[in-house]
Amino acid sequence: MGALLDKDRLFPIEPGARALARRLYDLVRDLPIVSPHGHTDPRWFARDEPFADPAELLVIPDHYVLRMLISQGVRLDALGVARLSGERRETDRRAVWRLFAEHYHLFRATPTRLWLDHTFETLFSMTVPLGPETADCYYDRIAEQLAGAEFRPRRLFERFNLEVLATTEGALDDLAWHEQIAASGWSGRVITTYRPDSVTDPDYEGFGDNLRRFGEVTGCDTQSWSGYLEAHRRRRAFFRAAGATATDHGHPTADTADLSPAEAAELYALVAGGRAGAGEATLFRAQMLTEMARMSVEDGMVMQIHAGARRNHSPAIHRLFGRDKGFDMPGRASYVDALKPMLDAVGLEPGLNVIVFTLDETAYARELAPLAGAYPCLTLGPPWWFYDSVEGMLRHRRATVETAGFYNTAGFNDDTRAFPSIPARHDVARRVDCAFLAELVLTGRLREDEAADLAADLAVNLARAAYRL
Amino acid sequence: MGALLDKDRLFPIEPGARALARRLYDLVRDLPIVSPHGHTDPRWFARDEPFADPAELLVIPDHYVLRMLISQGVRLDALGVARLSGERRETDRRAVWRLFAEHYHLFRATPTRLWLDHTFETLFSMTVPLGPETADCYYDRIAEQLAGAEFRPRRLFERFNLEVLATTEGALDDLAWHEQIAASGWSGRVITTYRPDSVTDPDYEGFGDNLRRFGEVTGCDTQSWSGYLEAHRRRRAFFRAAGATATDHGHPTADTADLSPAEAAELYALVAGGRAGAGEATLFRAQMLTEMARMSVEDGMVMQIHAGARRNHSPAIHRLFGRDKGFDMPGRASYVDALKPMLDAVGLEPGLNVIVFTLDETAYARELAPLAGAYPCLTLGPPWWFYDSVEGMLRHRRATVETAGFYNTAGFNDDTRAFPSIPARHDVARRVDCAFLAELVLTGRLREDEAADLAADLAVNLARAAYRL
Amino acid sequence: MGALLDKDRLFPIEPGARALARRLYDLVRDLPIVSPHGHTDPRWFARDEPFADPAELLVIPDHYVLRMLISQGVRLDALGVARLSGERRETDRRAVWRLFAEHYHLFRATPTRLWLDHTFETLFSMTVPLGPETADCYYDRIAEQLAGAEFRPRRLFERFNLEVLATTEGALDDLAWHEQIAASGWSGRVITTYRPDSVTDPDYEGFGDNLRRFGEVTGCDTQSWSGYLEAHRRRRAFFRAAGATATDHGHPTADTADLSPAEAAELYALVAGGRAGAGEATLFRAQMLTEMARMSVEDGMVMQIHAGARRNHSPAIHRLFGRDKGFDMPGRASYVDALKPMLDAVGLEPGLNVIVFTLDETAYARELAPLAGAYPCLTLGPPWWFYDSVEGMLRHRRATVETAGFYNTAGFNDDTRAFPSIPARHDVARRVDCAFLAELVLTGRLREDEAADLAADLAVNLARAAYRL
Repeated sequence: MGALLDKDRLFPIEPGARALARRLYDLVRDLPIVSPHGHTDPRWFARDEPFADPAELLVIPDHYVLRMLISQGVRLDALGVARLSGERRETDRRAVWRLFAEHYHLFRATPTRLWLDHTFETLFSMTVPLGPETADCYYDRIAEQLAGAEFRPRRLFERFNLEVLATTEGALDDLAWHEQIAASGWSGRVITTYRPDSVTDPDYEGFGDNLRRFGEVTGCDTQSWSGYLEAHRRRRAFFRAAGATATDHGHPTADTADLSPAEAAELYALVAGGRAGAGEATLFRAQMLTEMARMSVEDGMVMQIHAGARRNHSPAIHRLFGRDKGFDMPGRASYVDALKPMLDAVGLEPGLNVIVFTLDETAYARELAPLAGAYPCLTLGPPWWFYDSVEGMLRHRRATVETAGFYNTAGFNDDTRAFPSIPARHDVARRVDCAFLAELVLTGRLREDEAADLAADLAVNLARAAYRL
Repeated sequence: MGALLDKDRLFPIEPGARALARRLYDLVRDLPIVSPHGHTDPRWFARDEPFADPAELLVIPDHYVLRMLISQGVRLDALGVARLSGERRETDRRAVWRLFAEHYHLFRATPTRLWLDHTFETLFSMTVPLGPETADCYYDRIAEQLAGAEFRPRRLFERFNLEVLATTEGALDDLAWHEQIAASGWSGRVITTYRPDSVTDPDYEGFGDNLRRFGEVTGCDTQSWSGYLEAHRRRRAFFRAAGATATDHGHPTADTADLSPAEAAELYALVAGGRAGAGEATLFRAQMLTEMARMSVEDGMVMQIHAGARRNHSPAIHRLFGRDKGFDMPGRASYVDALKPMLDAVGLEPGLNVIVFTLDETAYARELAPLAGAYPCLTLGPPWWFYDSVEGMLRHRRATVETAGFYNTAGFNDDTRAFPSIPARHDVARRVDCAFLAELVLTGRLREDEAADLAADLAVNLARAAYRL
Repeated sequence: MGALLDKDRLFPIEPGARALARRLYDLVRDLPIVSPHGHTDPRWFARDEPFADPAELLVIPDHYVLRMLISQGVRLDALGVARLSGERRETDRRAVWRLFAEHYHLFRATPTRLWLDHTFETLFSMTVPLGPETADCYYDRIAEQLAGAEFRPRRLFERFNLEVLATTEGALDDLAWHEQIAASGWSGRVITTYRPDSVTDPDYEGFGDNLRRFGEVTGCDTQSWSGYLEAHRRRRAFFRAAGATATDHGHPTADTADLSPAEAAELYALVAGGRAGAGEATLFRAQMLTEMARMSVEDGMVMQIHAGARRNHSPAIHRLFGRDKGFDMPGRASYVDALKPMLDAVGLEPGLNVIVFTLDETAYARELAPLAGAYPCLTLGPPWWFYDSVEGMLRHRRATVETAGFYNTAGFNDDTRAFPSIPARHDVARRVDCAFLAELVLTGRLREDEAADLAADLAVNLARAAYRL
């Protein structure tokens, strides 16, 4: 046992099962990390500058951390989070770190604690738990290390044994950082992902302007339906040229639609003209999922649907501090009915791969596993966001494997903005999967040789295959 | 341990719990099989002819197998499934079997794998795992055995130690096979179940014709509401004469209604005249559940409600290959509101027993256990379809027993078309229940003598009682 | 092991985990009981008279017991339950007890069984299991003990080591029993809770009369919106003077609204005039949750929302026997959308504490933990009603702790009318929590010193803090 980490953490407690889980884990612990979906900043790898300080790296940008602290009365201002106005009421990073350390007990038994302790011990070699008394010691040691060459983004990428890292960019992004990475001669594989929400969601901030810029950057007439679709095709090709193998779609629901071309053109005229009501905006988003799926049939890009987030639930937080401050909430979601129009259109197309994620885990067993266990184009994504946790992963496996099997799932995604947490997140997933496999073997549901195969499949092979990496 | 089966499979891993589970299981493993609900073909027992070949027996008719293979890109045509046109594009059964064997890894950790391995080892004495290399060996050995006298349907019925097997027939069925079985002097108890969906669901294929035939076979005027109800009464009596103790109702939802006789007659006029819209079709199905419950009060037949399947989700598959090809999907379901009209009408009637099944397990703890734990007429059915699995059964017990107890549940149903899988399915249920009981004993929630009683109750007594067998 | 209770009940089965759970439990087993929400009768502690007999104490008023017996065909009449007419068809309490004892096997593996066996063994020193043969012995021994001084309500309060016990009274209650307790000089702390449903729910029996009496007892003009709000303020102050620290709101849904004062006044005019339709009644209840939250910001009372019960599901039972006879049913509930108007209004107010309870556990991970893990005013209540059970508590922890942590939860509530069961209920909660903590420690998710802190926090500290006791 290390200072912070139990070497057998997350394995079953029963000694025989623990030993088997450890045996399986030993087969996969050192496999490279395949990170096919996430939100790290490509600028880090383009510029390769040192990270600023412990609070800037580990507290201020992490909405998991912010939300828990806010929930117990800590103010975003006190955490050094900048207001939309640009004002930052607390600029002393050490004070921010101390405030965080004083509240570290709030994270007991959360994934954030697992990820941070993993980072503290394995990356920063800390040997005492974080708390009020050790806050300064932590701050100093981490700050010192961050300044060194071994903690530059590219070096960390290599130390983390990343085989590939996908970032996510909007449809209007110029992909300059990716270009710079490619031009640099550095061998790290950092690819992009096409995320067109800002030009497919009529409720997105600045949607009208976005459509105009979408026309400019593509040279297409985005006032017409056919020109708009062509613009997507060109951007998809542009993203593919920068390494993208996948698109991603963050929608409030998984609703899809399949209008006739004439109906779709008519709907688009309303949308592009800024005259779409709430129902029409919903319908347009739904239609665009089917259009994106059709383009994926054409160009082979894997399609991801991240459905169900009610974003910016608190208007006060959103108004003062903007997006991604911990106030995105899940809600009920359905898939069997919602995906039907898209599946009716392209559900049996060879070569199509649509990976579906949910924030409503009641859909795992009831809808997603039955769908993924029948339609060749559907793959079940890993537990997302609040479910990217030990218990969340176990529930996901227990709810889905009996109906969808393992081979209709997409391996693990870390889906994170928190670069240093990537090894921790994959390590948690590998441990939980090995624990689950050990249980299957010892209850006679799997042979050990099969479990060994599956451990590697779940760690890397399924992700490589699902994302065509 | 056999070649394919761990003798302690599905028992708890902790040695003390495992020993207790085994002790409980030893009390019930050899009890007869009571199979009160399923979809085997009575013709098998009437004619008692040998099964054709391994693929015809174990692959082609099994929608659990088909869906998993399709989900990974295998085509139904390649699996020897006949199109609705009658065309069968692959007639080489050995080729079908090989294709199945090549993909057998897809079933890892699924119930299908548990059931098939059980069948392979205990029925066909296979001693190596199925896979591409052993496909031919499997095919030959199974084909050879199927030709022998010990593998005829009646002999298998006896070897399986079946105390009673219920099949399911539509309201228009002439029950000729059951008659033939009865006339044969064979001692096996094969009974029917009254499933009137084709004459209660206005959306059923050929509904208008079905109503006419319903009039012909009963001698009732099925154009009038009273005649239609009388036709049901006569068919129910006819089915009872062929051994039926139960009816079964496969509805998209559990909605019930309790219209006045005049309103019901008016609604029926629309329905029988082919003039019912979607809302009226829904209302009619809802009304018919209450009518069927009323008739059950009269004639003592147990009523089963299997609610929630969205059938034939893929129109392309349905158009080419028809029903039951693995594309039936669950959806959200509710019961507390849906069943209220029926419960208001007959919920406290002595002697009524309504067994409710769900494809939405979120209803177990929230709705079905509270309802079954209060209304004397309601019994909670076992985990159905996608939930007829190890994890599904455990979740069912954990979600329901604390609120409904054990004695408001109906024991186990195999609900299968796959005759050879019946012993495997009951064995899984018995093992999982003994594992659960062992855990209750060792955590001080039950005494061991109570667990022993319950093991037998769950294995056979509750099913006998719930179905009045 | 006692005669009825395993001393290690509810602990993990694996020996190491069991030992650790027992170690944690030993730290909290003898802590005082904090009971911040429940439905015991303050008259008991005011009058301090002996309880009548075993059936009157343990069977007739317990809706958990009644519902299970009814579900298996026992009639309320036979159980000595009085009809609304006042008629009691069975007055022989020993006969009622025998009927209960004959059916005691129905409660196997239910929380009722755990609570009763705990009461039988620890309070009444019974040494054989309850059953038909021991019914009389039980009746006689319990009856004899109930007559003694050690079994008077105040003495039991002290023997139970109750630090504080909250009862729940309607807005119109005169709190005379609480006054009498206070005047008596007895040291037991019995406080009240403000539950205004009868004057905030237009569908409540006698709502119009209730409003008039609400005006009388407060001296406010409850025909005007401002007078009505003032009446609430005065009653809240009156309840606070009698020790209340909290309000409680039993609503069919968690819907909230935030109308403008003018709209609210207009709505109230309809409601007070008896002219509100169903939609308006719903909207009024929703508005009143926000108003109550605003008053909590003013006066510091903790606000509890118990949402989701469909009360009196069986009209026949309700008509004959009235409320609380076991026919209240849960239903689907949502919170992310429902609470938004209230949260938009006061969700970031310092000092506000709203404790939310649910009967739809699918909301734990999907809605309640994300909300409580972000909004400073929200606290997640313990598992309620059907979920106040071993499995229910474990699911609650597993579904919520990773997102909300432990510190956004409110500790345990027994929420009971069954006074003798209070020690049993808290004991179950403490054991289950220690079992869960032991598992976290042994899987490396918590250090043992943290688990020890948390065991005490979950047993008493979180409840004290959440309810400001």
